[in-house]
Amino acid sequence: MLRLSPSDGGALVDCPTLDVGIGGAELNVAIAASRMGMASQWLTRLPDSVLGDRFLTHCRAHGVEPIVATGPERVGTYFIEIGAEPRGVTVTYDRADSAFCFATPEHFDIPRILAGASAVFSSGITLTLGDGPRELVQAIYAPGRRRYFEINHRSKLASIDEMKDWLEPLLANIDVLFASPHDLRDILGLGDDPVPAAEKALANFGLEYVVIPHRVGRVGGVGTNSIRIIGEGVDAYSECEGRIVDPIGAGDAGAGVLIASLEQGLDPQQAADYAARASAWVQTHSGDSAKFRRDEITSADRRRVRR
Amino acid sequence: MLRLSPSDGGALVDCPTLDVGIGGAELNVAIAASRMGMASQWLTRLPDSVLGDRFLTHCRAHGVEPIVATGPERVGTYFIEIGAEPRGVTVTYDRADSAFCFATPEHFDIPRILAGASAVFSSGITLTLGDGPRELVQAIYAPGRRRYFEINHRSKLASIDEMKDWLEPLLANIDVLFASPHDLRDILGLGDDPVPAAEKALANFGLEYVVIPHRVGRVGGVGTNSIRIIGEGVDAYSECEGRIVDPIGAGDAGAGVLIASLEQGLDPQQAADYAARASAWVQTHSGDSAKFRRDEITSADRRRVRR
Amino acid sequence: MLRLSPSDGGALVDCPTLDVGIGGAELNVAIAASRMGMASQWLTRLPDSVLGDRFLTHCRAHGVEPIVATGPERVGTYFIEIGAEPRGVTVTYDRADSAFCFATPEHFDIPRILAGASAVFSSGITLTLGDGPRELVQAIYAPGRRRYFEINHRSKLASIDEMKDWLEPLLANIDVLFASPHDLRDILGLGDDPVPAAEKALANFGLEYVVIPHRVGRVGGVGTNSIRIIGEGVDAYSECEGRIVDPIGAGDAGAGVLIASLEQGLDPQQAADYAARASAWVQTHSGDSAKFRRDEITSADRRRVRR
Amino acid sequence: MLRLSPSDGGALVDCPTLDVGIGGAELNVAIAASRMGMASQWLTRLPDSVLGDRFLTHCRAHGVEPIVATGPERVGTYFIEIGAEPRGVTVTYDRADSAFCFATPEHFDIPRILAGASAVFSSGITLTLGDGPRELVQAIYAPGRRRYFEINHRSKLASIDEMKDWLEPLLANIDVLFASPHDLRDILGLGDDPVPAAEKALANFGLEYVVIPHRVGRVGGVGTNSIRIIGEGVDAYSECEGRIVDPIGAGDAGAGVLIASLEQGLDPQQAADYAARASAWVQTHSGDSAKFRRDEITSADRRRVRR
Amino acid sequence: MLRLSPSDGGALVDCPTLDVGIGGAELNVAIAASRMGMASQWLTRLPDSVLGDRFLTHCRAHGVEPIVATGPERVGTYFIEIGAEPRGVTVTYDRADSAFCFATPEHFDIPRILAGASAVFSSGITLTLGDGPRELVQAIYAPGRRRYFEINHRSKLASIDEMKDWLEPLLANIDVLFASPHDLRDILGLGDDPVPAAEKALANFGLEYVVIPHRVGRVGGVGTNSIRIIGEGVDAYSECEGRIVDPIGAGDAGAGVLIASLEQGLDPQQAADYAARASAWVQTHSGDSAKFRRDEITSADRRRVRR
Amino acid sequence: MLRLSPSDGGALVDCPTLDVGIGGAELNVAIAASRMGMASQWLTRLPDSVLGDRFLTHCRAHGVEPIVATGPERVGTYFIEIGAEPRGVTVTYDRADSAFCFATPEHFDIPRILAGASAVFSSGITLTLGDGPRELVQAIYAPGRRRYFEINHRSKLASIDEMKDWLEPLLANIDVLFASPHDLRDILGLGDDPVPAAEKALANFGLEYVVIPHRVGRVGGVGTNSIRIIGEGVDAYSECEGRIVDPIGAGDAGAGVLIASLEQGLDPQQAADYAARASAWVQTHSGDSAKFRRDEITSADRRRVRR
Repeated sequence: MLRLSPSDGGALVDCPTLDVGIGGAELNVAIAASRMGMASQWLTRLPDSVLGDRFLTHCRAHGVEPIVATGPERVGTYFIEIGAEPRGVTVTYDRADSAFCFATPEHFDIPRILAGASAVFSSGITLTLGDGPRELVQAIYAPGRRRYFEINHRSKLASIDEMKDWLEPLLANIDVLFASPHDLRDILGLGDDPVPAAEKALANFGLEYVVIPHRVGRVGGVGTNSIRIIGEGVDAYSECEGRIVDPIGAGDAGAGVLIASLEQGLDPQQAADYAARASAWVQTHSGDSAKFRRDEITSADRRRVRR
Repeated sequence: MLRLSPSDGGALVDCPTLDVGIGGAELNVAIAASRMGMASQWLTRLPDSVLGDRFLTHCRAHGVEPIVATGPERVGTYFIEIGAEPRGVTVTYDRADSAFCFATPEHFDIPRILAGASAVFSSGITLTLGDGPRELVQAIYAPGRRRYFEINHRSKLASIDEMKDWLEPLLANIDVLFASPHDLRDILGLGDDPVPAAEKALANFGLEYVVIPHRVGRVGGVGTNSIRIIGEGVDAYSECEGRIVDPIGAGDAGAGVLIASLEQGLDPQQAADYAARASAWVQTHSGDSAKFRRDEITSADRRRVRR
Repeated sequence: MLRLSPSDGGALVDCPTLDVGIGGAELNVAIAASRMGMASQWLTRLPDSVLGDRFLTHCRAHGVEPIVATGPERVGTYFIEIGAEPRGVTVTYDRADSAFCFATPEHFDIPRILAGASAVFSSGITLTLGDGPRELVQAIYAPGRRRYFEINHRSKLASIDEMKDWLEPLLANIDVLFASPHDLRDILGLGDDPVPAAEKALANFGLEYVVIPHRVGRVGGVGTNSIRIIGEGVDAYSECEGRIVDPIGAGDAGAGVLIASLEQGLDPQQAADYAARASAWVQTHSGDSAKFRRDEITSADRRRVRR
Repeated sequence: MLRLSPSDGGALVDCPTLDVGIGGAELNVAIAASRMGMASQWLTRLPDSVLGDRFLTHCRAHGVEPIVATGPERVGTYFIEIGAEPRGVTVTYDRADSAFCFATPEHFDIPRILAGASAVFSSGITLTLGDGPRELVQAIYAPGRRRYFEINHRSKLASIDEMKDWLEPLLANIDVLFASPHDLRDILGLGDDPVPAAEKALANFGLEYVVIPHRVGRVGGVGTNSIRIIGEGVDAYSECEGRIVDPIGAGDAGAGVLIASLEQGLDPQQAADYAARASAWVQTHSGDSAKFRRDEITSADRRRVRR
Repeated sequence: MLRLSPSDGGALVDCPTLDVGIGGAELNVAIAASRMGMASQWLTRLPDSVLGDRFLTHCRAHGVEPIVATGPERVGTYFIEIGAEPRGVTVTYDRADSAFCFATPEHFDIPRILAGASAVFSSGITLTLGDGPRELVQAIYAPGRRRYFEINHRSKLASIDEMKDWLEPLLANIDVLFASPHDLRDILGLGDDPVPAAEKALANFGLEYVVIPHRVGRVGGVGTNSIRIIGEGVDAYSECEGRIVDPIGAGDAGAGVLIASLEQGLDPQQAADYAARASAWVQTHSGDSAKFRRDEITSADRRRVRR
Repeated sequence: MLRLSPSDGGALVDCPTLDVGIGGAELNVAIAASRMGMASQWLTRLPDSVLGDRFLTHCRAHGVEPIVATGPERVGTYFIEIGAEPRGVTVTYDRADSAFCFATPEHFDIPRILAGASAVFSSGITLTLGDGPRELVQAIYAPGRRRYFEINHRSKLASIDEMKDWLEPLLANIDVLFASPHDLRDILGLGDDPVPAAEKALANFGLEYVVIPHRVGRVGGVGTNSIRIIGEGVDAYSECEGRIVDPIGAGDAGAGVLIASLEQGLDPQQAADYAARASAWVQTHSGDSAKFRRDEITSADRRRVRR
C-alpha cells in the first residue's frame, strides 16, 4: 500500500505535507530478508501507472524483485498518524478495490516462481482481501520449500470466525507458523498460555516451528520486542529493548530476519536474537521498510556512538 | 478531493513528501467568491473521519460554510505532477466510489439551503459522478436565484455524447453559462467561432450571459487568462498576463470572482477584469484554492514591489 | 498571537525556518471546546491585513467563529523555543501595542453576542493587556450564562498585587474559577493546600465550581496532567499521563474540554476525565491548538495502534 | 530587520513555515562589500536577547563586524510575500518602536569608529526612523573619508517633503550620492532626464559621483539591472540581465560592490560592471544578503555550467 | 557520485540542507535506457558501507542492475549549486581517490558480463579517472555488440592532448560515437562545422553513427535540446524546447534514450525524436536521474494539463 | 569537518535530504567558550572555495575568529546517522587528505597568535592527523599561557600505542589535562579508578588540573553528564541530567565552558557546574555547535516553561 503520514508528526486534519512510503506485511518481510542477504521476490498486482511504478521503485531499491500482474485498478492506500501517549497511532485504510484484491493464481506463473524459491511467506492479512488472493496463497503453499505463515489477525479486517475459516484449509501446508498470544488463544483456540499453546499447535498441525512474536511499549517510550521459537526440542527466546519512533513494520522486520536467518542455516537461537534486534531497530525510524545493514543486526558492537 | 502533489516539484515515482490540499471545481469557486467578500456555502458528502474533517477545516479556513451529508465511503483523491515543458502537468484521479458519488437530494434540506442563496453554481464535472449527484444538481437549479453553470467537459470523465445527454435537461434552468470554445463547439454544437456561438447559446437557451473563459501558456512560462462575457448588448472582455506556477484552479477562481462581482452589483466589464486578474493570480502559487485578498484583485497598484 | 517556533527544534539564533501558528489562551480554549462539538466564538481586535487574515483563517479552520473589531495596529507575536531538559522552553513575547490591547467594549455589540451564549470564558492574561481589555472582560461577564474564568497568573506580565487588583472587581461575576495551586495561594491568599483553598474560594466568592488544573513533566519525558473540580458536594479528580512534545496549550485544551463537557450536561467526573485526557493529548503535538477529534477524547479504545 | 517569508512561496494567510533571515539596506550593503573583500562594520541598536543574537550571528557569518548599542526594545520585523505577476511582491513592515529607532550618537564611540574607516554609507530609510537615527547619520558623515549615501525614498515611510527636509542638511556632507531616476526628479527636483539631473546634482552639491541604479523586470522573468556612475569627466554605464527569484537586496548588493570596488581602487567602469552583475546575481536567490564569492562577480567565465 | 545540492536553491555557503542524489554519466545513461524498457547494468566499484549501499539502492530503484566490485576507498562526491543567470551552475568535485578510480578489469567477470549485452556505453569522463578505469573501458569494448561512446571532454578533468591520447586506442572499437561540436573540432580535429566533421569521423573511424548532441539555454529560461544522428545515408535531426530547472543529466538522458531506441529497432529519426524530448524532459526536474515513464516520451499527447 | 546527517532522522541509505553543519572538537570547544563570552580563535587550513567559505561563515557566525592557512586540498567530511536504541549513532568519516592534514607550523604566524592568547586548547584527535598537525600542536603549546589538552582517544583513528607515543612529548607542556576514565587507564596507564589516577597524573606530569568528563545515556533517553576537576586541594564535581537528542559535541561544549569559566576567574566548582550543564544542554539539539546564551547556562531559573 501507499503509506501517507504527516511529515511534521502532527495530524491529518491540517498537516501541510505527507511523507510517502510503501508498506504492507509481505513486502516488509521480503525487504527485511533481503537486507539480511537473502534473495527475495514479492508477488503483487498493480496498475501500469506512475503510482504502480512507485511500488516497483521502492521494492527494487530495497533489493526485492517484484513479480507483478498488471491490472487497471487503483493502488491500496493507508494514512497513518503517529502520536505518543495518550494519542497513540491511528491507521486509516483506503484499500478497498485495490488491484491486488483482484489477483488470482492465473495471473502468475506459479510453478516457475516456486522452482527458484527455498521459502514462501504470506499472512492472514492477505486472506482478508478476497477469493482471488486466498486462492493465490493456497497455490503458493505447495510442498517443496519451507512455508512460513503469520496469522496476524486484525479485528478491523476480519472477525475471529472468518479468520478461522480461511486459515483452516491452509494449516496443513504450513511449516513455520507465526502466531501472537492473541492468535494462539482466539484464532487457534489453544488457551491463554502461549508456550503450551504453541506446543499444542506444533503437534496438532505438524509444524516445524511456532514463532511467538510479542511487542510492548508506546511511541516515544522504550519498548521490548521479543521472539520465541518453539520446535521439537527447541525453545529459543530473545528480546531487545528499544525506543519507539514508529511502531509499524517491527513485526514484519522480525519475521523477515528470522526467515533469512533460518534459511541461511543459523540455529533458532541466533535467528531469534537477530529477529528481536531487527524488530526493535526498525521501530527507531519512520516507515514500514527496514533500513538496517546486515552488520547492524549481527555485530556485537553496542557502543552508543560508533566512531 | 484530497489533492496530493510532490513537494519538491518532482515525480510521484520517487518524491519523499507530498503537499496536501483540498481541491475540486465547486469548492474552488466558492472559495474565490468568499475571498471577494461573498458569503458562500458548499454542499458535499463526506465520511465522518479525520480525512473528512480535513475537508471541513480547509473549507472553513477559506471562509466557506460546508453543508455536509455524512456517509461511510472514502474521500476522493487526486495526485498531480506539475512540470514545465515538455513535461507538462499530469493528473491521476483516484475518486471512484467517493462519498459524494452517493449524494442525493434527499441528503440535504434543499428548500432551506436555497432560501438563503442569491446564486447557485455547479459544473459538468459533477454531472459525471452518478445519478445521485445529477439529481442533486437538478434539485438545486430551481428558479428564484441566479443559476450559474460551467460545462467544463473533460474527455477522461465523459464522452461528448454523455455530456450532451446530461446537460440537456439542465439547460432551461441556467441563467449564466460558462462555456469554453471547446464546449461551445463540441458539446453545444454551435460552431468554431466562440462569440457567434455564445450569441446563439444566449438566444437558444434564454440565458442572461454566456461566459467564455480561455487560458493559454505553460508551467514556468507566462500565460494569458481571458474572460469574455456575452449578454444582451453586452460584450465585456478582459485578459491578464501572468506567470504559471500551478495551472490548477485558475478557471475556478475566475468563475468565483465573476460570480461574486456580478452578485455584488458590479457591471460585466468590471467582473471580467477582476475575474481575469484572479484567474492569473491563482496560477502564481501552488494549490487549487485562491489565496488573494479582495484588494489584491481590485487595487490599481501594479508596482513590482509594494513597500 | 502569531506563534513562531524553530521548525527544526533548534534555536532562534540560527534556525533556518519557523513554524507559524496562532496561539493565545482564550482562542485555544474556544478551539478545544469547538472540537468537543460546542459552537464557539472568539472576540478579538485585528488589523485588516494579510496577518490579520491569518488569524481569521486559523480560527475558522478550527471551527471557531471570530468576532473581530478592526484596528490599524500590529498583531501580537510570540517566539517559542522548545527544548528538553536542561534546556527547557523559552517564550519571547513581542506583543506590546498589538491591536487587541486597544480593544474596548464599544468595539463590540455585546448584548447581541451574549444573547446567543450559554457560557463565557476569559483569563487573567487578558487583564494584563490594558484598560480596554479589562473593561471588555467586565462587560462580557454579565449575569445570564455560566461565566468561566482562569486566573493564569504569569509573573512576567503582572505582579501579584496587580493581578489581585484587577481580579477583585471580577470575582463576584464568576461562576467557575480555574485556579492553579499557585493562584490559590498567592493571588487569592487561601493557603498552601489546594483543596481546602478551593473550598474556601467556593464559599468566599459564591462560586459554582473551582477547577484546579495541574501539570508536571518536562519536554521529551512523560508528564501527568490532572484536573480537580471542587463544588458543593463535588470533588471530581482525574489525571492522564502523556509524553510531552510541546507543553503549550495543554491547560487551555483542558479548560475548553471541561467547559464543553459541563455545558453539554456531562457530570463533573466525566468532564474532568475528558479534560485531563485532552490536556495530555495536546502536549503530544506541536502548536497551541487542539487537533483531536471528539472520539479521540471520549473513546475507551486505548490500543497503541488502532488498525 | 528580521525577515520572514513563506517557505513554500505561498501566502502568509496559510503558509506552514517561514524562512527566517536578516535584512535591511545598510547591512545588506555592508555584507556585499565584505564579500568583495572589504572589511566592513555595521552600527545598530539591538536587544540583549536571543533575537538580538540572531542579528549578530547573521552579521558575523557574512563577514561584517557589528557595532551594537544594547537597548531593551524589540527587533524590527518585516514579512514578505514573493509572487510572480500579476501577484507581485508585498512587504508588510512591523518595525515601529524597534530598538534602532531609539539609537543616538551618544550610544557609540563615533571618533573611534570613524578613525578606522575609509568610507561610510547610509540611506534615506534610516532618516525616516526618528530623530536619534537622523542625528546618528549626521554624526557619522564627518569629513575625513568617502561618504556614500543612497536616497532610497519609499512612499510608505516618508512623504516627498519630509525626505527633502531630512536630506537637505546632509547633502553638503556627501561625496557619492546614489539616486534613482525617481529620487533625482522628485526628491532633488532636477528633472525627468536622469543624466542631466545627475550632472546638475554633481555641480550643485559638490559631489564626486552620482550613481544612478535602475532595475526592471518581474519575479519569475528576466530583468535588467543597470548602474550609471556620473562624475567629473566620468560616465560609466553597465547593465546585467538576470532572472528574478527574489528582488529584495539587489540594489543594496550593487551599492556594496560599487563601494568596495572604488575603495579598492578600481576605476568607475569596472566598479559599475561588478555592481551591475552583483545586483543581478543577488536576485537569483532568496534572501536580502549577498551570497556570492568575489570571483563569481569578477571572473570572466560565463559558461552555463562550470564543471 | 554522491550528488549534494542546496535544497533551497541557495548557496553552499549557508544552505541548511542538501538534497542527496546519485549521479554520473554512465549511470544516468543506464537509467534513461532502463526507463525506456531496456534491461541495463552498471559496472562500478564501491565501498561496502552505508554510502556504498546508497548507490545500490538508487541504481536498483531506477531499474538498473549494479555489478559491483567492492573496495575500501571512499565514494566520489560532487556538490552542485544551481542558479539562474547571471549566477549559473557550479559543480565542485570531491572525487579524488574514490573507489572507482581503483577499478580494473580483473575486478569483473568481463566475458560473462559481455555475453548478455547487446550494447555497451562509456564516456570520456571515465578515461580521466586513471589507468584502471581506462583498462576497464578497453576490456569492455570488445567486438560482438554495438559499442557506444561519448567523448564528453571536460576541461577541468583533462587537457585536450590527454583526451586525444586516451581516446585514440579506443576509436577503432567504437560503433556509435557521441561527439559535441566542441569534441568534433578540438578533440578529433575535424573542423568547425559539425556535420562535415561528423561525416569525416564516420569515414575515418569506420563508425556506424556519429551523434551530435547540442543544448542551449540557461536555468530558469527555455532551452533547446537537439540531437543529430549522422550515418551512411542517415541525417536524422530532432530538437525539443523545454524549460530548464536543472541542466545536469540532460545529455545522459538523451544518450540513454537514443541507445534504447536503436537497440529496440526504432529508426534513427524516431530515436532522435525520443532522445531530444527525453533530454529536455529531464531538465524540468531536479536530479541527474531521468524520472519519465516510457509513454511520457513516446506519447503524442501534448496538452498542458492531462486530466 | 563538514557534517552531514539525514534531515528526517532516518538512514543514509535513502534519506532525501541531509542537514549540513560544521563540526570538529577544537572548533566546538572554541564556539562554546565564545558563547560564554571568551574571545576565541580557531586555527585551520582550508581550500579557497565555497566549501572552505562555509567553515568561515559558520565559525564567525558563532563568534569565533578563524585563522586560516589556505591550501588546495579538500575539506574533511563526516556523515552521521543518529538513532535511538538499539540503533545507536554511527559516524562515517571521509576526512582522508583533507587540507588540515597538511597544515604545519610554517603556515601560521605562531608568535603573534600566542601573544594575544591567555589559553590554548587542542586534542588527541589532531595528533592523529599527521606529522604537520602534530608539529603544529607542539608549536602552539609554548609556555606563557594556560595550556589545555584533551586526550580524546578514539580507537578508529589511532591505536593505544600510537596515542601514547604522540602524547608523550607533549605532556610536559600541558597545564590542564582532560582525560576520560578510559584515557586515564589505557593511554596514561594509571589504573582503573579515575580519581586516584587523576591524582597520579597531577603529580607525574606537573599539571594544574586534571578534568575527568563522563557521559552516560542513549539517544532519546535521559543521560547524565558529569565533570570532575582534580587539582592541588581541589576536587570539584558536578553533574547534570538531560535528554539526548544528538550526543555529538557534548564533551566539547563542556570543555569550552570549563575553559572560559576558569579563564574568567571562576572557581573550579563553578566551572564544573557550568560545564556539566552546558554539556547536557548541547545534547538537547542537533549539531556539533553549542547554541546556548551565557545566561541559559548560568541562570538559576529552572522552570519548565519560562514565560
